[in-house]
Amino acid sequence: MIVTESQGVKHLLKIAVPYLLFSCIYAGIILGIEEFAGDQIYQIPTQIGSVFGLAIAFFLGFRMNSAYDRWWEARKIFGELTNNTRSFVTKIYVYYGNENNVTNSSDGPTGQKASDLISLTIEYVRQLKREMHNQKEPSFEEETVAFFSKYGINLKNKVSNELLVAITQIIEGDFSPKAGLEKNDLMQHMNRFYEIQGKAERIKNTPFLMIYSAFTRIIVTVYILLIPLFIGDIDLGGEKSNLELLAIPIMVIISTVFLTVNKLANLFGEPFSESATSVSIDQICQTIENNCLEIKQKTIGLNS
Amino acid sequence: MIVTESQGVKHLLKIAVPYLLFSCIYAGIILGIEEFAGDQIYQIPTQIGSVFGLAIAFFLGFRMNSAYDRWWEARKIFGELTNNTRSFVTKIYVYYGNENNVTNSSDGPTGQKASDLISLTIEYVRQLKREMHNQKEPSFEEETVAFFSKYGINLKNKVSNELLVAITQIIEGDFSPKAGLEKNDLMQHMNRFYEIQGKAERIKNTPFLMIYSAFTRIIVTVYILLIPLFIGDIDLGGEKSNLELLAIPIMVIISTVFLTVNKLANLFGEPFSESATSVSIDQICQTIENNCLEIKQKTIGLNS
Amino acid sequence: MIVTESQGVKHLLKIAVPYLLFSCIYAGIILGIEEFAGDQIYQIPTQIGSVFGLAIAFFLGFRMNSAYDRWWEARKIFGELTNNTRSFVTKIYVYYGNENNVTNSSDGPTGQKASDLISLTIEYVRQLKREMHNQKEPSFEEETVAFFSKYGINLKNKVSNELLVAITQIIEGDFSPKAGLEKNDLMQHMNRFYEIQGKAERIKNTPFLMIYSAFTRIIVTVYILLIPLFIGDIDLGGEKSNLELLAIPIMVIISTVFLTVNKLANLFGEPFSESATSVSIDQICQTIENNCLEIKQKTIGLNS
Amino acid sequence: MIVTESQGVKHLLKIAVPYLLFSCIYAGIILGIEEFAGDQIYQIPTQIGSVFGLAIAFFLGFRMNSAYDRWWEARKIFGELTNNTRSFVTKIYVYYGNENNVTNSSDGPTGQKASDLISLTIEYVRQLKREMHNQKEPSFEEETVAFFSKYGINLKNKVSNELLVAITQIIEGDFSPKAGLEKNDLMQHMNRFYEIQGKAERIKNTPFLMIYSAFTRIIVTVYILLIPLFIGDIDLGGEKSNLELLAIPIMVIISTVFLTVNKLANLFGEPFSESATSVSIDQICQTIENNCLEIKQKTIGLNS
Amino acid sequence: MIVTESQGVKHLLKIAVPYLLFSCIYAGIILGIEEFAGDQIYQIPTQIGSVFGLAIAFFLGFRMNSAYDRWWEARKIFGELTNNTRSFVTKIYVYYGNENNVTNSSDGPTGQKASDLISLTIEYVRQLKREMHNQKEPSFEEETVAFFSKYGINLKNKVSNELLVAITQIIEGDFSPKAGLEKNDLMQHMNRFYEIQGKAERIKNTPFLMIYSAFTRIIVTVYILLIPLFIGDIDLGGEKSNLELLAIPIMVIISTVFLTVNKLANLFGEPFSESATSVSIDQICQTIENNCLEIKQKTIGLNS
Repeated sequence: MIVTESQGVKHLLKIAVPYLLFSCIYAGIILGIEEFAGDQIYQIPTQIGSVFGLAIAFFLGFRMNSAYDRWWEARKIFGELTNNTRSFVTKIYVYYGNENNVTNSSDGPTGQKASDLISLTIEYVRQLKREMHNQKEPSFEEETVAFFSKYGINLKNKVSNELLVAITQIIEGDFSPKAGLEKNDLMQHMNRFYEIQGKAERIKNTPFLMIYSAFTRIIVTVYILLIPLFIGDIDLGGEKSNLELLAIPIMVIISTVFLTVNKLANLFGEPFSESATSVSIDQICQTIENNCLEIKQKTIGLNS
Repeated sequence: MIVTESQGVKHLLKIAVPYLLFSCIYAGIILGIEEFAGDQIYQIPTQIGSVFGLAIAFFLGFRMNSAYDRWWEARKIFGELTNNTRSFVTKIYVYYGNENNVTNSSDGPTGQKASDLISLTIEYVRQLKREMHNQKEPSFEEETVAFFSKYGINLKNKVSNELLVAITQIIEGDFSPKAGLEKNDLMQHMNRFYEIQGKAERIKNTPFLMIYSAFTRIIVTVYILLIPLFIGDIDLGGEKSNLELLAIPIMVIISTVFLTVNKLANLFGEPFSESATSVSIDQICQTIENNCLEIKQKTIGLNS
Repeated sequence: MIVTESQGVKHLLKIAVPYLLFSCIYAGIILGIEEFAGDQIYQIPTQIGSVFGLAIAFFLGFRMNSAYDRWWEARKIFGELTNNTRSFVTKIYVYYGNENNVTNSSDGPTGQKASDLISLTIEYVRQLKREMHNQKEPSFEEETVAFFSKYGINLKNKVSNELLVAITQIIEGDFSPKAGLEKNDLMQHMNRFYEIQGKAERIKNTPFLMIYSAFTRIIVTVYILLIPLFIGDIDLGGEKSNLELLAIPIMVIISTVFLTVNKLANLFGEPFSESATSVSIDQICQTIENNCLEIKQKTIGLNS
Repeated sequence: MIVTESQGVKHLLKIAVPYLLFSCIYAGIILGIEEFAGDQIYQIPTQIGSVFGLAIAFFLGFRMNSAYDRWWEARKIFGELTNNTRSFVTKIYVYYGNENNVTNSSDGPTGQKASDLISLTIEYVRQLKREMHNQKEPSFEEETVAFFSKYGINLKNKVSNELLVAITQIIEGDFSPKAGLEKNDLMQHMNRFYEIQGKAERIKNTPFLMIYSAFTRIIVTVYILLIPLFIGDIDLGGEKSNLELLAIPIMVIISTVFLTVNKLANLFGEPFSESATSVSIDQICQTIENNCLEIKQKTIGLNS
Repeated sequence: MIVTESQGVKHLLKIAVPYLLFSCIYAGIILGIEEFAGDQIYQIPTQIGSVFGLAIAFFLGFRMNSAYDRWWEARKIFGELTNNTRSFVTKIYVYYGNENNVTNSSDGPTGQKASDLISLTIEYVRQLKREMHNQKEPSFEEETVAFFSKYGINLKNKVSNELLVAITQIIEGDFSPKAGLEKNDLMQHMNRFYEIQGKAERIKNTPFLMIYSAFTRIIVTVYILLIPLFIGDIDLGGEKSNLELLAIPIMVIISTVFLTVNKLANLFGEPFSESATSVSIDQICQTIENNCLEIKQKTIGLNS
């Protein structure tokens, strides 16, 4: 994740420099031709060029705006995962700690049960992260596979769904009929896990306006190719001075700005890719795991 | 659904090429007349033309933005359908698996009941999809008709509503008075199904600002017809060179850009049509069905 | 409601043609004066005119955007009414169908009770529609008055509120203490009815930015009156040709575009008026009523 | 509240006329100096002036948009107060009307209790209104003080909070253990009262972007002062005609438009001030009170 | 916090004056070079410069808009903290005041328990504030440490989480099985605390579009450096007058405006920093604490 503006500058340069170089070369060639072929061969009224340029700027502005909204929506989803996991795990610890809530079964001490549930929750968060990274069928460690099979998780089905079903089932089985409200409370958390996962998958699987993205890319490119025509009269008043070269930076800068905004919109429109601009889900999931482990630690006290 | 930018380019071209051809022909004719009738017959100050052009670009920008919001809202609705169905079906499986929840009746094993409920849910998702595609009265297979009549579904009424009533009724009948919270939990899912359906119908049945759409189409067309007037002085400084032809690409490009944005806004404003830009509800509903079937498989174990 | 774009064109023309005629006449008069008084009497730098024109286009663009948001919010509210009524009525039917839920009273068969509740719900939807149309004190039919007085509805108070109180009271009275969750579920629906009604009244009773509407109307008018000044040099290069007349269409078009956008924003800002652009609440309420009647039909089976 | 557009015009003129007069005087002075000192002393390229003007128009457009959103958010909050109060009061009436819900205490008839709760709710709405108008310590009538002290309301603390605590406490005390769900339902209404109050206080106490408001005011002023420089070449082509005076209206209009938009944004950014543009909370609270009184009337019937 | 517009002006000047000075010096140098080297050495068509300038204004306008949305979202989060804490604490007081709700244990009087819970809530609010200010490991007073250790709070873990776990645990332990609904109500408040904290951390830990911030900063700077080129023909018509100096204010003003908007967007994008523009969380938390203390005072009465 990009945390400071200087990191931002660094990544920005990575994106912008190729555009800059391309624009420089193109501007050089065009000016060269003009110089060679005689002055003032290009003359298109600049007014229409400025309508074109501003229309593009406007469309890019809206697109960047939508891309950022999409990025922030993606960030919010993983924020919700944090909140929901934290409160779910706290509830697990607290509810299992009250013996009135749990059925007296021979399955083992309640501390172990709570601990297992928290472990499954951690596995779920990990699996969700993997699925966001397209690692849908990871090779689990033997220990994990054993743990999963204990709770009937079918690795051939979608593992994240299987984990949620398993957690739901454990909760349904463990809570005594008297503890209906506590169970119901946890079930609402399950709903939220399903919602969070669905939202994340929605953003991941629905590309961001690919046809519009193609559209802006093409019109930006066309605009850039036409810029020399729009500013072709640059040496009109230049009176044989060599200041025509001033045309190069201005062409280069405008081109680079538009290409870069378009690229940034593409990047923010893919919040779950693994680039520097994407939502830092690895880091968020690590924080969630740490929070879970702090609570899991406490469940040991419940065994006694 | 358009997944990659190159697919986007392909579909974009399908939309844009007719506009491009039309613009080329129009520009050719106009320039021909001008050439024939003598230079400089068209001379309208470009400033007012640029106000006009930019005003249109603004209005199109806002309209595109609203269209995309509408499209994304439609996508979210089917995302909610995914989430709600997944958690509903999981709850059905888990709650029916706990014998405390279900009334002891002679209706048959609970596994069968849960399986039937999941089947009805799948039918509901299918029917919702059909209604979105305007197939309101499909010819059901005989087997399905028998299954429906078992649960009192009246095929003369609105089938999606009938399915929701049937599911609600089964849940009300099957859960024991002790399992009030579990039943209530499922009832909240029913509410959400009604909300999702209502939202989807709202977007489907309320066209996207047809009067505004007519408005932008007309002003874009007028603007395009007037462009030659705005850039009519193109050969003013051309000193008898043949570079007037440069006017053609610029006219063509601006025309195509504006017509294409307008068309894209129309397409995104109809997210439930069956075009390449619409929300891929078939695919989403297939995913939901697969998720349901994975859970339905598990209910077999409940019969023993 | 405007459903197709060709209907949109038709309604648009109704709005735009008067503006068009007015603009034509005005432009004709101004050009006439100019012709009579000698060329080039109007000469204001066009740059400032284009700042003015574009600033207006911005403000209109934003206003149109807010107006559309408001219109869509209004549409959503009646969508929520649909969803809430559908699920409420389904719950009424299903809950009354389970004898465990209802108190054994001598009031009559539960089917009749459920049917009456659905009738009251239909009356509520009708009354809400009437209040949206400012028919606050309709003359009810004798039968309806009798039905209302049976449930203590005071026609001197606000009838929609009275209907909601009556429904709430019947539910409170009919459900047995064991069916607290079912009753509570229905009570949440009552909350939603109150919310929907309050939201609809909020939009109806709070006009859309009248001061800003006055503002845009005035500046658009001023701009239009000034346009001839901004494009007054239209025949500067015209070399005695008669092409000055080309100024008329351009003036007329810009004027019509701005006046029409302003008018459209006003229309969308009043979603509950009874114009072609308003939310089609009559049609929506009719759909709701039909859905309710389908369920009401089913309640007959409960009497046996 | 401004209900019609003609009222809007009236209030708009109140705001705009001072700006108009100021602009006229300023434009007159500047043109006078120019006339006196010789033509064409001001000559700044208009292009940069139009970038400046449009940038300001853009920033003002966004600011107006945010101001309107804020205003609408404020209006929504008092709409929620209406909805929540209406349904809360209906529930009070209905729940107290069912003797199963209420503890059999010697405190008096349930009708009186319900009536008192509704009175406290009315007092809460009134007090919230007063706090929005900064009347934090009103002088209550003797009767009200007696009523308040009966329910332990400490007038030295924040009165609105005290009223909510009192209402919560009465509900907790009156409902029998069997009526847990009914009590819980009312408690959710209490949560909503807290939320509504908090939201209203948030908007009231957090001024709307004062630094940005200062910014737009300053740049608008600077722009206006510079306008004569941007349009200083107005008589360049005027050929000694006296039409320079046409510069005055255009300068005046642009100045007035920008100053007025800025002022409108400031007004809409303060939705709880007591100006004509603010949310009409007095009227809304009066409506709520009337609705409450209609229900309070009904509670008399509960005493028998 | 900035409350009045005059404070806004003051802070604005702090931000803008350095930009103003820098721009003055730069403009002076450039004009000096021009004067020295001969007139009219800089001549780039202004049209392309105005496209560039307006494109930047667009992008800045959108960015400022997003920054303000972010700021307002941050403000809302602490508003939710206020609402949730107020209603939570009221419920604690009211529920503990009803002896039916609380288990009869030898732990001490219920008034003390309620008072301790409110103290823990206050500590939580304080701790959240500290974490927002990056004081993650404050040195607690001895008294507080003792109080914390009484409730098993592990100061090595994340203290805010530990406090929420402790509060959840106390509630689970204190409420009798009969008071399930009351406990559940409080548990929902706990969920909201987790959500609020998660949301606040999300905004704090996810910087606002650093790459876009770097982008706007660079293009604004480039634009400013190029302005003299765009307005270099300022004395074209100046006829040897000394009015070239008028170029300085216009260059300076545009530069300052763009740099300041960019800076303001950066400031509003960091709502939890400790600058004058950030959300006044210290003040909000103090208000919450005062509200809690007013209720805590009341709990003394419960001991008797």
